[in-house]
Amino acid sequence: MISLDEARGTVLAGCARLPATRVPIDDALGLVTSEAIVSPEPVPPFANTAMDGFAVRAEDTSGAPVPLTVVGTIAAGAAPDIPVGPGEAVRIMTGAPIPPGADAVVMVERTQMAEDGGTVMVLAAASKGDHVRAAGEDVAAGDEVFPPGTDLEAGHLGVLASIGLVEVPVYRRPCVGVLSTGDELVDDDRPLRPGQIRDANRHTLLALVRSAGCTPVDLGVVPDDLGVITRTLEQALSECDALITSGGVSVGDFDYVKVALDQLSGGGMRWMQVAIKPAKPLAFGAVGGVPVFGLPGNPVSSMVSFELFARPGLRTLLGTSRVITPTVRAIAREHLHRHSDGKTHFVRVRADWGDDGRLHVRSSGGQASNLLRSMALANALAVLPDGDGVGAGGDVEVLLLP
Amino acid sequence: MISLDEARGTVLAGCARLPATRVPIDDALGLVTSEAIVSPEPVPPFANTAMDGFAVRAEDTSGAPVPLTVVGTIAAGAAPDIPVGPGEAVRIMTGAPIPPGADAVVMVERTQMAEDGGTVMVLAAASKGDHVRAAGEDVAAGDEVFPPGTDLEAGHLGVLASIGLVEVPVYRRPCVGVLSTGDELVDDDRPLRPGQIRDANRHTLLALVRSAGCTPVDLGVVPDDLGVITRTLEQALSECDALITSGGVSVGDFDYVKVALDQLSGGGMRWMQVAIKPAKPLAFGAVGGVPVFGLPGNPVSSMVSFELFARPGLRTLLGTSRVITPTVRAIAREHLHRHSDGKTHFVRVRADWGDDGRLHVRSSGGQASNLLRSMALANALAVLPDGDGVGAGGDVEVLLLP
Repeated sequence: MISLDEARGTVLAGCARLPATRVPIDDALGLVTSEAIVSPEPVPPFANTAMDGFAVRAEDTSGAPVPLTVVGTIAAGAAPDIPVGPGEAVRIMTGAPIPPGADAVVMVERTQMAEDGGTVMVLAAASKGDHVRAAGEDVAAGDEVFPPGTDLEAGHLGVLASIGLVEVPVYRRPCVGVLSTGDELVDDDRPLRPGQIRDANRHTLLALVRSAGCTPVDLGVVPDDLGVITRTLEQALSECDALITSGGVSVGDFDYVKVALDQLSGGGMRWMQVAIKPAKPLAFGAVGGVPVFGLPGNPVSSMVSFELFARPGLRTLLGTSRVITPTVRAIAREHLHRHSDGKTHFVRVRADWGDDGRLHVRSSGGQASNLLRSMALANALAVLPDGDGVGAGGDVEVLLLP
Repeated sequence: MISLDEARGTVLAGCARLPATRVPIDDALGLVTSEAIVSPEPVPPFANTAMDGFAVRAEDTSGAPVPLTVVGTIAAGAAPDIPVGPGEAVRIMTGAPIPPGADAVVMVERTQMAEDGGTVMVLAAASKGDHVRAAGEDVAAGDEVFPPGTDLEAGHLGVLASIGLVEVPVYRRPCVGVLSTGDELVDDDRPLRPGQIRDANRHTLLALVRSAGCTPVDLGVVPDDLGVITRTLEQALSECDALITSGGVSVGDFDYVKVALDQLSGGGMRWMQVAIKPAKPLAFGAVGGVPVFGLPGNPVSSMVSFELFARPGLRTLLGTSRVITPTVRAIAREHLHRHSDGKTHFVRVRADWGDDGRLHVRSSGGQASNLLRSMALANALAVLPDGDGVGAGGDVEVLLLP
């Protein structure tokens, strides 16, 4: 058996970020910038008012209260085509450009309009720059708004749009093929014949790939036929940026996927035994440069293995620096049992916030590795190193499931 | 001004979960079950072995060590067509069906094969049921695996596949239209003319809609023309399950969207002033049964307003019971300032885990409501009720951004 860190090291050494490309802003959610994003223009693009009020020459208001002649109105979005001369004011709406000649804005609350609408009484003196947002105050032309390697979330896309970008330089979004094999697998609602089981893993893995920000590619269930499996894998390796299979990776398993991958990789696949429970067996190799994750066939093991190995690998393809999900310190609300077997145990738990600002965790159900329901109900995995487990009220490291 | 709770109450009263439908499992991620999910069949479907080893009759092993005659091998996925008679054993792989006659499995580690392969020495006595997973041990036929109202994540989809479901009863996924209006808005990389600005909000809101598990529908930028706006809204109301606009909701704003929505709703839109900062102005109404969210035009206000009002509204359409994002108790790493103005302030912060198992927060940058960059860098909003703010080291409620 090898350690979790060694196994993950092997996986990450075989993964590299994908080539950079440019995508429309609305397609960039969850991708990672491949270059520094430098603003080609100032934001805001022109001086504008932060308040509804009157654009004035500050010096005209020093003797407030003073009357000024209202020479026009500028709405947000209008061109600033009404100059403000001495003794004049222009009514102005939040966001509207500051007209030529004006150097301050008086809030509408500090003014009083004459009944004829032609004159406004400014009640308090303004200082130069009052309520004026200068051009480039948020972002100057040439400013770096985001460094390379920025994970793009909704707010980032707005910033990119605000500086006039239409396409964003990012690392390409990975297409990830998910494959099941086995003549015993049934993928529709036909009644099962003796020995047959339903294919659950593929559906879970396709959803996990999507949740990792990648594009899932459903390669379906492939029958136990070396020729068909080899051709399916060859085709998938030419079209996908990564492949995920499940099952057939245990010691002593005979599996055509194993044979096919060993042949296609020229012996480059590593078949590992990792000192963790669940998810001890793991296969990984870069086949023709394409990372192939061979996850265990057990449904819970396959999900845990995805979180510990495939998700960090896919994040590496995406180009983010946030590769490994960090663990956080929670409180065990009940005894989390384990027996000593030289492995790190990952216990399915439900983590809830306490009034003390801590996460409190309880087992989410039966921990046998066939019990997928407790995995579905879990939102975290408690990490129990070799030893006696954790008593109720004790601190425990947990990996929050994304 | 009305309170946050009152405004949110108005919004949620105008939102209802969408009709139930059935979708393929792989399309159900993020949706919510509309019925209890009852398993039509047992999981596992047949008794099988939890270990590699030998299927035996437990009574034959009581005098261990004892030799048994190996009469065959059953792989996972094979039919259990080799019966085990007295004094016999069948080699069996993890997951393979227990053959007729056998009632226990002896782990391979507790056996020794004879050199001819025809006999196995069982080294330790087995008890009935050892390493046998009974049919229906995980799920019995007729068991409720998930109640109605379950939020479907990756693990749930695997459970649904494992019980033979092909389609899932769920509430329909909402299509949410996002609209910008204004002749001053530019949506490509053309240079800006005086008074023009870039449309940032629509891109942010489309991404937020997607992050909320809904299907975003880009309605584009509509010019300031009452006829065009009215026709665009009518068309969108007939095709979308909700609409989101931004801008034109402040008191005193003149906006064609306002006029069009007031007409289309027959006066049913509510134009609110909420005692929060940012995001004070808010419009909401159900127009022909379709919820319409009028968010403020300011980029930060629009995002905060989405989190406080539109996301809970969209979650209601999805049918989940987790409507409002709960706040959690964090530690302020620096003084979070506010002035007293009768409003609840939402301060953009970066929350990071401390070794004490608490979230520690710092301001993510300038808090003026035009500064979208600090919103993009934030992963939480600190909630400051009216008062003096929070000192460094003090506790503060934060809303974690999803």
